Amino acid sequence: MTTYAENVPLSPVPNDDGIDAAVAAARRVVNALLHAGADSAAPMSDIARDLDRIADQLEEHAPERRERFVGMWAGRPRHDPVTGPENALAPPLHLHGLPDGSVTGTVTLGLPYQGPPGCVHGGISALLLDHALGVANSWGPGPDGMTGTLSVRYHRTTPLFEELTIRARQESSEGRRIRTTGEILAHGEVCVSADGIFVAKHVARPVADEGGR
Amino acid sequence: MTTYAENVPLSPVPNDDGIDAAVAAARRVVNALLHAGADSAAPMSDIARDLDRIADQLEEHAPERRERFVGMWAGRPRHDPVTGPENALAPPLHLHGLPDGSVTGTVTLGLPYQGPPGCVHGGISALLLDHALGVANSWGPGPDGMTGTLSVRYHRTTPLFEELTIRARQESSEGRRIRTTGEILAHGEVCVSADGIFVAKHVARPVADEGGR
Repeated sequence: MTTYAENVPLSPVPNDDGIDAAVAAARRVVNALLHAGADSAAPMSDIARDLDRIADQLEEHAPERRERFVGMWAGRPRHDPVTGPENALAPPLHLHGLPDGSVTGTVTLGLPYQGPPGCVHGGISALLLDHALGVANSWGPGPDGMTGTLSVRYHRTTPLFEELTIRARQESSEGRRIRTTGEILAHGEVCVSADGIFVAKHVARPVADEGGR
Repeated sequence: MTTYAENVPLSPVPNDDGIDAAVAAARRVVNALLHAGADSAAPMSDIARDLDRIADQLEEHAPERRERFVGMWAGRPRHDPVTGPENALAPPLHLHGLPDGSVTGTVTLGLPYQGPPGCVHGGISALLLDHALGVANSWGPGPDGMTGTLSVRYHRTTPLFEELTIRARQESSEGRRIRTTGEILAHGEVCVSADGIFVAKHVARPVADEGGR
């Protein structure tokens, strides 16, 4: 029987400097652009030019795609769109493993994640849950794998600007077939739940000799 | 019987200037940060400072959240995380309505949308499909509404850096219950399919008198 330490961080921990700080600042820009809107008095042409200049600067120093591809998969991935400190799309969500084999984390989502007025986009909830179920598989007792089917049920709207709790757990595994469930809660009520069937297989990580894909 | 014009753009069309240009440049930054990675020789501290300065500048000119909230819902929304020209999280996907009542669009996704090595994150596919099904409901013959359940099936991995086709259509509606399906294809093969039950109800748009939130 597997034993678990208590409350183990399962998401990559962001640093306060280097690329993580730049990505955190990029998240602020993405959010501030949405808050500003088309009627903002901010000098948008200057801002566009400044952002393009920063992108140029980054691209100038970027490795070849193939090389970067190997590098980003060499250690613990830090680039996914849900928990990745190097990905400005990620809120980011921080997940922890609990002694009972489940995973949990809290997150508060702002305007970039909006669907209906004031509510989280249903597809964003599906994204967070798909990822959390995957992390639950890597923490749980059985094998982990890739999503085969994901069924998402929307019980009530999920609020923006309020703390959400994400929970997920591996329910069972039989051979290569894994069943995993999870939910998003606000104020203690389930807003969205997910039930996934995962298959214990993986896409090979790229290695230097064979190249990027 | 409803008749349809041919190939009608259903996604908000980006402008080449103003906020849309700034958001397009922000997307370049998000992407370039991921391509650069932690080992990049780019001056990350300077870049973090420059991005924070831009965020400060935008925040300084941003309206109150409540005011912005009313404004962003006053016309055709341009801020969603899939097709929104004002949202740097959106690839963006451009959907068109076809004469047969279905919707379609193509998109090529880069590193920010990665799940398994070289592949689109399963949750990102769910996000794109949930949104496309919603747009199909607004274009199709029956009512539109909010997602009740979404079942996503992953047939094969979905490649990054290659053109994907997204298709969706309203299959039927009965009272307030709507059934809508869609899929993501690469090289003519279905990678991911979705089957959704939507409910013909809506969250009220915020109006100036009542305030946003």
